[in-house]
Amino acid sequence: MELHERIYELALTRSFFYPSNEIYGQVSGFYDYGPTGWQIKRRLQALWRRMFIQEEGFLEVECSIVTPEIVLKASGHVAEFTDPVVECEKCHTKVRADHLVESKMEFKWDGKLETITAKIRDNDIKCPSCGGRVSDAFASNLMFRTGIGANQEVAYLRPETAQGIFTSFPRVFRNHGAKLPLAVGQIGRSFRNEISPRRGLVRMREFTQMELEYFFNPKVPTMEGFEAVKGKKIRVLTRERQEDNGAPEWISAEEIVRRGIANEIMAYFLVKEWDYYTIAGLNPEAMWFRHLRENETPHYSESNVDLEVETSHGMVEIAGNAYRTDYDLGRHGELSKKEISVFSEETKEKIVPHVVEVSMGVDRLFFCMLEHSFREKSEGKDWEWFDFAPSVAPYDVCVFPLMKKDGLKEKASGIAASMREAGVEALYSESGSIGRRYAKADEIGCPYAITIDYQTLEDNSVTIRFRNDGTQERVAVEKLVEKIKKLKKEGKLVLG
Amino acid sequence: MELHERIYELALTRSFFYPSNEIYGQVSGFYDYGPTGWQIKRRLQALWRRMFIQEEGFLEVECSIVTPEIVLKASGHVAEFTDPVVECEKCHTKVRADHLVESKMEFKWDGKLETITAKIRDNDIKCPSCGGRVSDAFASNLMFRTGIGANQEVAYLRPETAQGIFTSFPRVFRNHGAKLPLAVGQIGRSFRNEISPRRGLVRMREFTQMELEYFFNPKVPTMEGFEAVKGKKIRVLTRERQEDNGAPEWISAEEIVRRGIANEIMAYFLVKEWDYYTIAGLNPEAMWFRHLRENETPHYSESNVDLEVETSHGMVEIAGNAYRTDYDLGRHGELSKKEISVFSEETKEKIVPHVVEVSMGVDRLFFCMLEHSFREKSEGKDWEWFDFAPSVAPYDVCVFPLMKKDGLKEKASGIAASMREAGVEALYSESGSIGRRYAKADEIGCPYAITIDYQTLEDNSVTIRFRNDGTQERVAVEKLVEKIKKLKKEGKLVLG
Repeated sequence: MELHERIYELALTRSFFYPSNEIYGQVSGFYDYGPTGWQIKRRLQALWRRMFIQEEGFLEVECSIVTPEIVLKASGHVAEFTDPVVECEKCHTKVRADHLVESKMEFKWDGKLETITAKIRDNDIKCPSCGGRVSDAFASNLMFRTGIGANQEVAYLRPETAQGIFTSFPRVFRNHGAKLPLAVGQIGRSFRNEISPRRGLVRMREFTQMELEYFFNPKVPTMEGFEAVKGKKIRVLTRERQEDNGAPEWISAEEIVRRGIANEIMAYFLVKEWDYYTIAGLNPEAMWFRHLRENETPHYSESNVDLEVETSHGMVEIAGNAYRTDYDLGRHGELSKKEISVFSEETKEKIVPHVVEVSMGVDRLFFCMLEHSFREKSEGKDWEWFDFAPSVAPYDVCVFPLMKKDGLKEKASGIAASMREAGVEALYSESGSIGRRYAKADEIGCPYAITIDYQTLEDNSVTIRFRNDGTQERVAVEKLVEKIKKLKKEGKLVLG
Repeated sequence: MELHERIYELALTRSFFYPSNEIYGQVSGFYDYGPTGWQIKRRLQALWRRMFIQEEGFLEVECSIVTPEIVLKASGHVAEFTDPVVECEKCHTKVRADHLVESKMEFKWDGKLETITAKIRDNDIKCPSCGGRVSDAFASNLMFRTGIGANQEVAYLRPETAQGIFTSFPRVFRNHGAKLPLAVGQIGRSFRNEISPRRGLVRMREFTQMELEYFFNPKVPTMEGFEAVKGKKIRVLTRERQEDNGAPEWISAEEIVRRGIANEIMAYFLVKEWDYYTIAGLNPEAMWFRHLRENETPHYSESNVDLEVETSHGMVEIAGNAYRTDYDLGRHGELSKKEISVFSEETKEKIVPHVVEVSMGVDRLFFCMLEHSFREKSEGKDWEWFDFAPSVAPYDVCVFPLMKKDGLKEKASGIAASMREAGVEALYSESGSIGRRYAKADEIGCPYAITIDYQTLEDNSVTIRFRNDGTQERVAVEKLVEKIKKLKKEGKLVLG
């Protein structure tokens, strides 16, 4: 069984995620987060908010999902956000055309519909359902379409959270100091009506993005915090290395700028992303930033850099960085016929700001995190467990009374309540043997388990059990919150 | 100008909320939350999570928005989630039929289409656009329809978050101890394709709900925490008082149960909701729980109780409590043909659990909060401001250097950073006079402003300015976090 298959099995019983409306059978591409998985996802989002919004003093907004057609005409999604499809002339099944060819032969699509059609005709590829002749490849739009109001004005579910940030830019700029640079982020659901979703959480029809748009004067493409991080090295797969099928190399932020891979602004965010993903527990030896080649870069973009992660599902892109220039704002200015340019204090002129976009997917990250944190049974642990980093584990601590009787239960639930009050996320459990409860804490990757026993009633101390080595330490209840916060901050997972 | 009109004006410039994709003109019923409004909304949601999930040890999930048709057939939404509409036979405009009649005469709709049609014919009511003859009233479904995949399987955007909780009940029950009671909540976007939305945030087409489903054995309709709250009094508009056009009365939770308005479980949540909304700053003298009359209560419900709030938009329902019996689970069992009953340890039998639902709207609450917290200009404050409670104000504190020079700026931004690190949400600002910055802090309802001045450089102390009376207190920097947390907890808004 491949690792992702095991992960999906465990996800079902450990309440990480499961098919939406599962009792009716799965509709591909839709998953719910169960109570444990949602805790993790929420904490991944909170960590992003802390690092990409609050620490930076950036702004966060919440925009609508249902989006009128004109907005997505401006952004190019109505015309260009498509996948190649063929329809069977006999049974009318539609399938992804490039996937159909891939299933029959070695094939890497060049983006042209004619290439696919030629392959299908040359190799006489038929409908996978009924063996009938299939149509020429055609472009099928990937947005979910809907209609607003009784008269059904055409609208779509947003394919990315970014467009709401662009269309509200003039108002947010005006309200928040009317000066550049300005950075606005958003966490929210986006939608892509995939023809045939594969790879579980990696290709969902409904998914969550964390996006940041950094608006700046293109004549001043500098970043205040860059100086402090310029020596920091991260793994990059350069265009040159891709030509030679070479490996990623560790390059400093300064070097990234010097080699023209990214400007200071994007390089700053690459470092920040690297930190974010390593704090979230991804294995730095199994990920790298890839500088997209020229033919992969959209015409309006100065540079695109993706974060790629190795998993048993193959390589997974979990973040995209793009220097989108003034493309989006310019297009919205054209179609809305509203003034979109702003006065820049820096160069004393009116300009349409440029944008560096940092777009990160939460669900894919969660999947990669599950794979990288998965641990087999081993000596002392007769169960498969997850080595989650404390800041993104589902709970900070589990709290267990040794027994339900003799006042231990009341004491333990009181301790859990006071920890929650102090901002520590605690999961309380009293059922099953203490050994079984430790195992369950490991199974959901909770880093610390606190046990209230008979000694607690005597001297008001409890034990903290460390997930990774099962060792225990005795701590006074009045020091507990401080102790857990310290362990979490240091990421300490063994007593030794 | 009515209060809500002033609120909407202020909302635009203070970044509370504004029409989505505003540069293209407003599409009714869609609003974005700006950076300030989103801070408040997020904190309202966090307060709900703390009180309704974490403090109780309940579970939270995240389900999909796009929902296959069969799920909403089971829930009754496909057949019954409708509004009455008429279409003009000449210009084909569609309008809400009951609103059309209301605009011409005193009218309270009894829920029957024939009643509306009769009124239209008897009074010869015409199309409001062109004066043409209108059709008979017909039912128009309120869900946004879409299609999944290349073959466009019929699906809808969920009209409430609840159904995902119901369809995942069997799995969540099994994974989390397989015992009743079990409570599962969710915060998320829901959608209603209103024919003609009115009243801004009160009737949105896309809105956010906080819902909780409490599953229990109907033979054991008791609540562990009830004993502790049974004496607590809340305002209730009983059915009897409604008959007499009487006022709400203050009734204890125990009395609510005794009079048959709600069972212990619902009564417990009514008290909890009352606390939540008063902590969020609603005026308890301008709200009450209304026990819906028998003809307003769905056939499957044992009791419905709404929370109603007085505003300049008229009365606004911001929460609905419903004892939905086994209706939803039973329907999903029927249509999915899956086993939905569970073994109850309490009575040693297989049962379909009953449900008490607590459904709260975030956007309507936010609007009510803005109205109840709005304060006119007064002596000492030449600006309109908001008296938000500290726990739901957009920021805990504003941090201002008196001047940008002499190291004050660096000192102030360092203090802001260390406060954020300690979990205090701080907004840093250095532009404009200190007086103007105090005014701006008041305008967005930030309860405390911290100023770093020349004395700070000497003795490492700062001033805290209290929003509500403008008085100031000097505090040592090393005590600042503790002090702010204490003020926030106590809700103290003046120095005196």
